[in-house]
Amino acid sequence: MRDFLPDDVRKRRHVIGVIADVYQQYGFEPLETPSVENLETLQGKYGEEGDRLIFKILKRGEGAETGQADLALRYDLTVPLARVAAEYRAKLPKFFKRYQVQPVWRADRPQKGRFREFYQCDVDAIGSKSIVVEAELLAAASDVFTRLGFSDFVIRLNHRKLLEALLAGRQISKSSWADFLSAADDLDKIDVSDAVARLMEKGHDADGAASWINWLAQFKWRRGDARPLSAFNEGLDKFETLFNTADQGHPQLAAREAAHAAIVELKQLLALSESTSARGRIVFDFSLARGLSYYTGAIFEIAVPDLAGSLGGGGRYDNLIGMFSGEDVPACGISLGLERILVVMGERNMFPPSLVATPADVMVIQWFAGRADFYLAFATELRAAGLRVELYPEAPAEDNQKGATVKQFQYAQAKGIPFAAVIGKPELEAGTVSIRTLATRQDEPRPRADVAAYLKTKI
Amino acid sequence: MRDFLPDDVRKRRHVIGVIADVYQQYGFEPLETPSVENLETLQGKYGEEGDRLIFKILKRGEGAETGQADLALRYDLTVPLARVAAEYRAKLPKFFKRYQVQPVWRADRPQKGRFREFYQCDVDAIGSKSIVVEAELLAAASDVFTRLGFSDFVIRLNHRKLLEALLAGRQISKSSWADFLSAADDLDKIDVSDAVARLMEKGHDADGAASWINWLAQFKWRRGDARPLSAFNEGLDKFETLFNTADQGHPQLAAREAAHAAIVELKQLLALSESTSARGRIVFDFSLARGLSYYTGAIFEIAVPDLAGSLGGGGRYDNLIGMFSGEDVPACGISLGLERILVVMGERNMFPPSLVATPADVMVIQWFAGRADFYLAFATELRAAGLRVELYPEAPAEDNQKGATVKQFQYAQAKGIPFAAVIGKPELEAGTVSIRTLATRQDEPRPRADVAAYLKTKI
Repeated sequence: MRDFLPDDVRKRRHVIGVIADVYQQYGFEPLETPSVENLETLQGKYGEEGDRLIFKILKRGEGAETGQADLALRYDLTVPLARVAAEYRAKLPKFFKRYQVQPVWRADRPQKGRFREFYQCDVDAIGSKSIVVEAELLAAASDVFTRLGFSDFVIRLNHRKLLEALLAGRQISKSSWADFLSAADDLDKIDVSDAVARLMEKGHDADGAASWINWLAQFKWRRGDARPLSAFNEGLDKFETLFNTADQGHPQLAAREAAHAAIVELKQLLALSESTSARGRIVFDFSLARGLSYYTGAIFEIAVPDLAGSLGGGGRYDNLIGMFSGEDVPACGISLGLERILVVMGERNMFPPSLVATPADVMVIQWFAGRADFYLAFATELRAAGLRVELYPEAPAEDNQKGATVKQFQYAQAKGIPFAAVIGKPELEAGTVSIRTLATRQDEPRPRADVAAYLKTKI
Repeated sequence: MRDFLPDDVRKRRHVIGVIADVYQQYGFEPLETPSVENLETLQGKYGEEGDRLIFKILKRGEGAETGQADLALRYDLTVPLARVAAEYRAKLPKFFKRYQVQPVWRADRPQKGRFREFYQCDVDAIGSKSIVVEAELLAAASDVFTRLGFSDFVIRLNHRKLLEALLAGRQISKSSWADFLSAADDLDKIDVSDAVARLMEKGHDADGAASWINWLAQFKWRRGDARPLSAFNEGLDKFETLFNTADQGHPQLAAREAAHAAIVELKQLLALSESTSARGRIVFDFSLARGLSYYTGAIFEIAVPDLAGSLGGGGRYDNLIGMFSGEDVPACGISLGLERILVVMGERNMFPPSLVATPADVMVIQWFAGRADFYLAFATELRAAGLRVELYPEAPAEDNQKGATVKQFQYAQAKGIPFAAVIGKPELEAGTVSIRTLATRQDEPRPRADVAAYLKTKI
């Protein structure tokens, strides 16, 4: 768990602000759910490992002595969304498009870059099966990364039904799918022979493992590949041909129709994206599997060259909300990894300089002893004009105006405030204010009535 | 615990945005602390009742079976601030001025207007004993309420040392102070005779109880009092005279000097506030005690006529941070009651109409079947111009353009989107877009290139 000091908060808010702004441009509305859910709402939704990582809250009152828990901290933003979609069905629009930026908690062992409290930025569209939904989500994500200053992100794209059709076609039993999907994801981090070895360690035969991994590797995009993304996307056509040719090593392709439909969807999505800011950003990568989660259609992940993992990812999940509402509700979403985005932006120095260490535009210096009222009135004037003003809280001693002023200048500069405004004896007589640029120590006299307007031109 | 649907979130963000904006104008910087603290950090800081209301988190791993807790949910924002001030002392400026808007959790029995998860908006200045700090806090609070649209708020003002000096002067034993301070707060809600009765129920003698309550009532401001606030503030002079006159019923005034210093501070604060937006807002109310908390100096509460409690309050607390840092650090702050502010603003209908139910500026209608790419490109154009655009996700059937369009209009209107943009066959031939104002059903044809600029003039 971390404290966020002012500079951290400003950076976090900058990123969250861009995300919220872009999502709103796409008609997504903000949702916030409580940090605490009933334990039974969360349990059984994240697999065995997930259940273990839920922070549980001790019962109050009667149950307190027994050490029982009835509540738990939010583990992700998807299950609460599903609960809300079911609970407020009558109040929500048919197509409920929501974004949500809130912390989640996982009782993981803390490690570098992994925290027990971290933010998720989720955007989901509920209620439509149209591929337009996927296209808009990818466009919005592209806008977010572009506006944050990323010029080298790539959206990896695959389809869960395509993976499943392939696994079915290879007559791999459903109980082994998890291992094979996990191997697909592995291929993004380790090389072909290690991935084969890992599958064999799990008890799968050498031929089957090698065949699967090599098949994946054929369609695998890798960070830094010099070939244009379109070369990989043309791979979809090759893929289709392979599917349609019964003697290409997949004679028992049971789910041929499903695979075909998935390919058609991916091609539609690529075509639609030609009309959006995701144009030229998307690459078909058959080794993307998105873990063991609940996806049922297109899946995607955002990659940058200097990060092994992803900056975000998501996909279509048409069955999850039904777990709460009892009826099938189609849904599709992306979750952006706020903490990782912040890490990469920090390493790359991508934050606008204006964000860092400017707690105020100007500091009002107390020069006369015992005249806090006078300086407070001046600070009030500047604030009324819209400036961010810090008033040095303590008045100088009667006999040490100069020393006190220097101390106040130093304090303002150490805090990163760019200007100081001084009304001392000479200024009072001349009816002016001295504006000091703290970085250069240059003073500029200005009539008091012009100070706010002058400072506004400088900040 | 509550879910906040989009309209709720927009209202909350509006209020939080104004608060943050004003605080920043006063040089306060944002701080965020984790939701979860070590249990031992929180325990023993909020009194016996407080300890009972802390949500405790079950140990993971080894301790899990024993039902032990080692972590807890944040109970307020002040203790985390004190921890941060001690922990990061070397990194923080000498005068650390921070604001913090985050949820806190209390295991209270939920009741009307009381929630187990709720937001606090705290602003505190650490490191200075100057009364300028109090003056700026009251000015900032006044700016917040004024900008939110409140024209009838009043800041009740008192001083903890004045109350204590009075209690000491009456030779009331320290062990009874809590009861007498609590009786002072009671007087804001119940009448004189009930307040006396309540003190007697706690075992205090009738004369002492009546004398104390009647003394308080002399200097008690009440909501809706027709007298100007200044009449009460002049009471401070009367108060001072009473103090200085040994035969006025308080012959054993042990802490006369402390009381005098407190009165001087309150008068300074009133004088300084003449230079700020708190001018004319402050009323001396000797019955304000601010519960049993850790205050050591000026205390204040924000009152409005239509609410029995307060919209916020605070004061100076010079000893609390020392509990963590081991050395005395002066501090002063205000906490605004976000949930109550929202309730009052809701009841009074104070939210700007633009906040409510405008998830997007315009909905792009899908008129042609199978041309999602075309409409997506048009939506992309409008978004690039800065508009918030919703694209209806589903294409119409080939043979039902008119029906589909009507359905899409209805959907947009139900969602509160003010305009719809249609490119159907006639528009395509004319090179125009029909802009429908959904409330009036009027259509206005516009050249496609002018649509964004036109809509911007309308929203």
